[in-house]
Amino acid sequence: MAIEWTGSGPELLMRLDRENGDPLHTQVEWALREAIQSGRLRAGERLPSTRRLSAELGLSRGLVVECYAQLQSEGYLSTRAGSATRVAAGATSLLPPPPPAAEPVRPRIDFRPGVPDLTGFPRQDWLWALGEACRTAPVADLTYGEAGGSGVLRAVLAAYARRVRGAVAHPEWMVVCAGFAQGLGLILDALAATGAGRVAFEEPGPAYRDVVTARARVEAVPVPVDEHGIDVAALAASGARAVVLTPAHQFPTGVVLSPERRHALLAWAHERDAVIVEDDYDAEFRYDREPIGALQGLAPDRVALIGTVSKSLAPALRLGWILCPPSLAATIAHGKRYDDRGSPVFDQLALARLIESGRFDRHLRRMRGVYAARRGTLIRALARHAPAVELGGLAAGLHAVARLPDHRQEEVAVAEARARSIGLYGMSAYHLDGRTRPPRLVLGFGHLRESEIEEGVAAVGDALG
Amino acid sequence: MAIEWTGSGPELLMRLDRENGDPLHTQVEWALREAIQSGRLRAGERLPSTRRLSAELGLSRGLVVECYAQLQSEGYLSTRAGSATRVAAGATSLLPPPPPAAEPVRPRIDFRPGVPDLTGFPRQDWLWALGEACRTAPVADLTYGEAGGSGVLRAVLAAYARRVRGAVAHPEWMVVCAGFAQGLGLILDALAATGAGRVAFEEPGPAYRDVVTARARVEAVPVPVDEHGIDVAALAASGARAVVLTPAHQFPTGVVLSPERRHALLAWAHERDAVIVEDDYDAEFRYDREPIGALQGLAPDRVALIGTVSKSLAPALRLGWILCPPSLAATIAHGKRYDDRGSPVFDQLALARLIESGRFDRHLRRMRGVYAARRGTLIRALARHAPAVELGGLAAGLHAVARLPDHRQEEVAVAEARARSIGLYGMSAYHLDGRTRPPRLVLGFGHLRESEIEEGVAAVGDALG
Repeated sequence: MAIEWTGSGPELLMRLDRENGDPLHTQVEWALREAIQSGRLRAGERLPSTRRLSAELGLSRGLVVECYAQLQSEGYLSTRAGSATRVAAGATSLLPPPPPAAEPVRPRIDFRPGVPDLTGFPRQDWLWALGEACRTAPVADLTYGEAGGSGVLRAVLAAYARRVRGAVAHPEWMVVCAGFAQGLGLILDALAATGAGRVAFEEPGPAYRDVVTARARVEAVPVPVDEHGIDVAALAASGARAVVLTPAHQFPTGVVLSPERRHALLAWAHERDAVIVEDDYDAEFRYDREPIGALQGLAPDRVALIGTVSKSLAPALRLGWILCPPSLAATIAHGKRYDDRGSPVFDQLALARLIESGRFDRHLRRMRGVYAARRGTLIRALARHAPAVELGGLAAGLHAVARLPDHRQEEVAVAEARARSIGLYGMSAYHLDGRTRPPRLVLGFGHLRESEIEEGVAAVGDALG
Repeated sequence: MAIEWTGSGPELLMRLDRENGDPLHTQVEWALREAIQSGRLRAGERLPSTRRLSAELGLSRGLVVECYAQLQSEGYLSTRAGSATRVAAGATSLLPPPPPAAEPVRPRIDFRPGVPDLTGFPRQDWLWALGEACRTAPVADLTYGEAGGSGVLRAVLAAYARRVRGAVAHPEWMVVCAGFAQGLGLILDALAATGAGRVAFEEPGPAYRDVVTARARVEAVPVPVDEHGIDVAALAASGARAVVLTPAHQFPTGVVLSPERRHALLAWAHERDAVIVEDDYDAEFRYDREPIGALQGLAPDRVALIGTVSKSLAPALRLGWILCPPSLAATIAHGKRYDDRGSPVFDQLALARLIESGRFDRHLRRMRGVYAARRGTLIRALARHAPAVELGGLAAGLHAVARLPDHRQEEVAVAEARARSIGLYGMSAYHLDGRTRPPRLVLGFGHLRESEIEEGVAAVGDALG
């Protein structure tokens, strides 16, 4: 429906501002575009002649002619020789603005697992490292880099994996990635390309199952975990050609993969020509002794080790690495190239500087002390307020597993706590079928102050024990 | 084959360093692990007793017992009651270190298209913005963020897209991504999920075709480009339900999509319920007039606009954005979540600060001047040294298209230039079939100093014109 231009105050439409820094022709174009986009000027509607509009706005006619030409090039206006300029047919489709998103209600004290202490993030050190990276990066580093990652960082990470995780590592086998989700995705894509489309994972296990199943070409099969880690006989029976697991500190049960299982697992991998994806998610945090060395060191041709800084620094950095089996390294780097053409270079160089300078190790030492103290507080608070609860798992990581007395129901304890604004998480959430077995809670303590841990446990003690 | 421990100088194996900061038990474990991994200690080989090793190394026996226990937990050693400790069976698989990679030989002066001037990257401004981001980000921002990107950056980008590109934009429709490749991948995945598995792209067109075809569920179909842009009749005949194109400045031909084609394209999209992916790759750089406004402003429900900082700042930052059609925004953000759980937060906040502070615009103004001067030098140098060459395309972007006289062969000109260590690139490389039509070169000038442009053209003038 064409509406004639009324002439009643185009300044209402235009709002030209001569004090504003933007050129007047930009302002006119902007105002016209906006009027068409918002539906105030509709398809077919006639615009005033350039003579009339320039007179009304006090602009040169040439300027208005230029504006109309620009908007005609862009498709907003149409002109036919000897006829008026009109809003082009189909120049706009009105869309309602999106509704505001609802804010989720968070519990006052939240024992959500997997969250590190972000107040401890070493901002000064990170900024120092970024500054070093940003100032000293060669110009050639500012373009698309090697998809597998900066050579500088890969060398530092290989040395780190050897030194700290007992890995067998070369820079050429390292692929820098955006964190665990991307790392796993890249490995699964590479495996699918080799025909290994059936992938086992731990049950109960981390919530990244959905990443596994979201990758269309991979079929995910659950394999049970007991107190010695993953059940290798069940794994062998599953027909999987790859397995994703957390051998140093199983998530969420907190057990360690026993030496016998390690050997059985490696024998399975050699026999079936299978790949083991080692999720090294919290290897930096063990409090009673050294962390268990990476499985990768025992079978570098069979194991893809994924590490990240999500627990050690912060998830927001989105930095991780894959120490690839040599036979898969090129395919995985190729996948990274297609995914996003490599991770941001300054971030990579900053991490390299942070590790090389010793500041990363210093930060880890400090955080180990913080986390060990929080874990101690959790143990004492449970003993005091919920004495019937039994604590399991290693003295490691950022979460503990609390077994409730058999007569307690997981979901009831979780709901009662929630009613008191305390966030608790049941083990059943980490089972594929969501069913409760012996009632257990997975208590994240890494991000909570000792006073919050004490207060939170005190508030729900009667609901637990 | 089991070899008995010879006892001839375990210090050869161990290299303990008491001055070194690492604890002695770590050094012993490290040395043993390394000896097994490298094959110096082989499967089945007997280790000295803890008594003997501790005596030889001058360490406490408890320390050596602890080391053996650690390596047994990790699977390197096996112990049976009453029997010697041995290297575990299958504890290691020897892998040769990777061979060093060969360095590619680069031409002395390289007219490779698509490379911005990286010496102009505003390091001070970027570092300032990173510092602001790193110092002021709330602690809550340090964890996993919204997959669609930081709310702060999305608001800034929506305002930028409205102001600079004439787009219709809301923060809720923005998804921050790692650059063009990831942005396109996310859109294609979302389209494939809606059943739009056939995607058209421009022929000749950007080299990201391989990204299109690498995504398994998408079938890529080429549609020819002429002097008015993409051939919409051919597009309609192709049966595609989506098209990827560069309307403001076609890559590589340099033409602009005409107003008539714009309307025909939008009519096609409405009629077929199709999606237009607008690659806004160098919109910031037009030298003779304002850049053509984004197609997205005409049909925000049909167009996904991808912008990045790869040309305006540097590819190494790996930052871009998708202004999504509202109906696809949630699916695309979901895809980003599965891909990498969001882009790095400090980088996102830094870009927001850079734009908000006006430093981004200032940088663009400066670079427009630099690029316009380089383009001028290229035109003059060609006129002087290769007068038979005809320059085409808009006064825009970081590349120009040079048409050679008909009797010249593209690949011969490229080869002759290469022999003189000058990198030239033929238009045929951007055609799917690689065939030469009228001989044309795509000359990237953005990253070359004026003296290099002059020198490079002078060196190959006789081969061109």
